[in-house]
Amino acid sequence: MPLTSDEAEAVVKAAKARAADIGLAVSVVVLDLGGHLKAFSRMDGAWLGSIDVAMKKARTSVLFEMETQKVWELCRPDAQAHVTFAGGIPLKASDGRLLGAIGVSGGQVAQDFEVARAGWGALPL
Amino acid sequence: MPLTSDEAEAVVKAAKARAADIGLAVSVVVLDLGGHLKAFSRMDGAWLGSIDVAMKKARTSVLFEMETQKVWELCRPDAQAHVTFAGGIPLKASDGRLLGAIGVSGGQVAQDFEVARAGWGALPL
Amino acid sequence: MPLTSDEAEAVVKAAKARAADIGLAVSVVVLDLGGHLKAFSRMDGAWLGSIDVAMKKARTSVLFEMETQKVWELCRPDAQAHVTFAGGIPLKASDGRLLGAIGVSGGQVAQDFEVARAGWGALPL
Amino acid sequence: MPLTSDEAEAVVKAAKARAADIGLAVSVVVLDLGGHLKAFSRMDGAWLGSIDVAMKKARTSVLFEMETQKVWELCRPDAQAHVTFAGGIPLKASDGRLLGAIGVSGGQVAQDFEVARAGWGALPL
Repeated sequence: MPLTSDEAEAVVKAAKARAADIGLAVSVVVLDLGGHLKAFSRMDGAWLGSIDVAMKKARTSVLFEMETQKVWELCRPDAQAHVTFAGGIPLKASDGRLLGAIGVSGGQVAQDFEVARAGWGALPL
Repeated sequence: MPLTSDEAEAVVKAAKARAADIGLAVSVVVLDLGGHLKAFSRMDGAWLGSIDVAMKKARTSVLFEMETQKVWELCRPDAQAHVTFAGGIPLKASDGRLLGAIGVSGGQVAQDFEVARAGWGALPL
Repeated sequence: MPLTSDEAEAVVKAAKARAADIGLAVSVVVLDLGGHLKAFSRMDGAWLGSIDVAMKKARTSVLFEMETQKVWELCRPDAQAHVTFAGGIPLKASDGRLLGAIGVSGGQVAQDFEVARAGWGALPL
Repeated sequence: MPLTSDEAEAVVKAAKARAADIGLAVSVVVLDLGGHLKAFSRMDGAWLGSIDVAMKKARTSVLFEMETQKVWELCRPDAQAHVTFAGGIPLKASDGRLLGAIGVSGGQVAQDFEVARAGWGALPL
């Protein structure tokens, strides 16, 4: 069963709540397992540049089915690699099937990762 | 004052509610006045192609500050015109200032327009 | 001798003056004979969409060395034609050599053409 | 209040004057806060390649609201980073609001930065 619109929005909402908790303004992207946009929100004050970076993080996660910082390890010699620092996380069902991905941008790498994890946590497992 | 994240999400929510009322699954895009993505949702069952069309409708509305079907009238001789059928509406403040735009795709032209208008109606005027 | 920066800015200035005279807010593009941007100005209140349209008009003029509305006559059967309504004019030296082009967008077709002609008039002939 | 056309052209003029002082031919880009072109000038003798580089520097500045060389520090692990060397500066109002950005290209990095700063200095503070 694919990621539903309700699930995608729950992921966005949880990510935004965490970002607000740590005083961050971020863009949050949720893609389905085909890499197509399912839900998006840009918080007030987030850089415009965060839109594109969050998109690329989520896209990288769904394309490689792994967290973005791990893609970096995989792809290091490849100049064509997508964004490869933390903040993109594949969303998976409890049985391990890929559902899509979340991408977050707006803060430091570790912050973006924390926010993405919080979004990921909104999915029923 | 720019369109807030809360306002953008209220617009998306109202548009989705109307779409559900008329049995439609759509993509809803809200852009700020610079044409940058502020909020997005794709309802379950909406065509993947609706993402891009909704984006283009919203973009056309914000670039030309008018409803998309009117751009068509303006640009008819122009082979390079953006998508020009109904479903993109500029979002304006009560004093007439441009705030951004909504774009909707997923149904017939008249349906998309109705859904976009419902979204627009969520803004305080 | 190629179009100088001073000439390009005189063209922009003259076009803007005419636009202001007729109560219009436009984007004015001046390209050199290679089709590369030499000078640009977007007047306050001009639609964002006028940037791209003015660019395409100027580009069409320099690529085909003719006024944009004439390209339309040439290309009518070709769905790939560039913007083909009036508002792009090739800039030529007194000896007929192509110097570049001006493109204007922001008003009705006839207004854009009038503004572009005013800009063209700033070149020494 | 957004960056006006007069302000944008004052920024371009000041940047060009500084470039001329130091014997440089540059492209100068001024974008509004949505990243859309407001004013542009390419000095005689500037490389054609300076157009695109100046655009990207300005775009990066407005997207990330910081000077381009600082984006580099932020994004170092990111293979997809935009142009990140000096020469793009966000333009801000006296109250700190983002107005847009200037991007300069044509010389050495330190020269481009000096020219961009000179342009920035033309804004009333």
